[in-house]
Amino acid sequence: MHDLFAHLREEEVDSQQVFGGKLLDVRRDRVRLPDGRECLREYVRHQGAAVVIGQLDDRRLLFVRQYRYPLRRSFLELPAGKIDPGEDVLTTARRELLEETGYSAGQWRHLGVMHPCVGYSNERIEIFHAAGLEHLAAQSLDSSEFIDVVAVPLDEALEAVRSGSITDAKTITGLFWAEKVLVSGW
Amino acid sequence: MHDLFAHLREEEVDSQQVFGGKLLDVRRDRVRLPDGRECLREYVRHQGAAVVIGQLDDRRLLFVRQYRYPLRRSFLELPAGKIDPGEDVLTTARRELLEETGYSAGQWRHLGVMHPCVGYSNERIEIFHAAGLEHLAAQSLDSSEFIDVVAVPLDEALEAVRSGSITDAKTITGLFWAEKVLVSGW
Repeated sequence: MHDLFAHLREEEVDSQQVFGGKLLDVRRDRVRLPDGRECLREYVRHQGAAVVIGQLDDRRLLFVRQYRYPLRRSFLELPAGKIDPGEDVLTTARRELLEETGYSAGQWRHLGVMHPCVGYSNERIEIFHAAGLEHLAAQSLDSSEFIDVVAVPLDEALEAVRSGSITDAKTITGLFWAEKVLVSGW
Repeated sequence: MHDLFAHLREEEVDSQQVFGGKLLDVRRDRVRLPDGRECLREYVRHQGAAVVIGQLDDRRLLFVRQYRYPLRRSFLELPAGKIDPGEDVLTTARRELLEETGYSAGQWRHLGVMHPCVGYSNERIEIFHAAGLEHLAAQSLDSSEFIDVVAVPLDEALEAVRSGSITDAKTITGLFWAEKVLVSGW
């Protein structure tokens, strides 16, 4: 197929890991620009993630409140987490919903994908809607995770975006999809 | 004020730069968890950014198409860019709109803020709506930037989210705000 955007493309010349931590894999690649010159691109290599719009039978949505150290405060977010190596992404979504909230869901629907940080990360986040929720178990968190579970009606969550109480981009994006699916029938 | 979420808080013990590149400042901090144990947090320190919903007089919105090397493909995005040291964020928004698209705007409105990547970056993106657009100049790009400018009606852009042609989270978040402001009167 002819690539309409070939005039924008950058080609890898070489790739180097410049930091390999417990969480982050940071790369610095030499790339060839569309005009033939070379430059360096620095970015985080990420395994991808899933985010879940979990809808209770009373139509409230499940959120988690979690301290986000990079920003030195807690955030109200939709449940989400990283894909384990070799894991199917629906399995990730089910596992993260159960681990973070203790809920399991009878109906799952894949809505789409978002890219949170195209400038310096290759992370993708697959978006799922989950209904038919049942509280199965207590949370099952990593030893460094401390998470509150909160149920909020969609209209209150949208108002929290407007007022600035919800600012996490994957959560705003998820609420955008939730409103389209639940109200506009996407 | 009593902090309702103090039971989630993590305290910095020490902070170390583990990679300082041309673009990325990567930190590894030792933190004290709510239960008193310590762990390491790795994240990107970012200067913040602005994104612009630029609305032409015919109501189409301005987008840029740009190759995003971390994901090895181009993306359709709202114009955006990083805050220069000491720069007021409205100045960033004006500058980035002009540099990336050649447009200047008569009316500016700050809509809100989003955090694209709370798990491993402290980046915030301030969201602006710009109207009264006037084409002033050619693009003025960095030597490593190659950007196409595209004008798209809001309903087509929303359909592009639905179909998966727009997946950049700051752009979906911006379109969420655009629809609320332009259609729902937020």
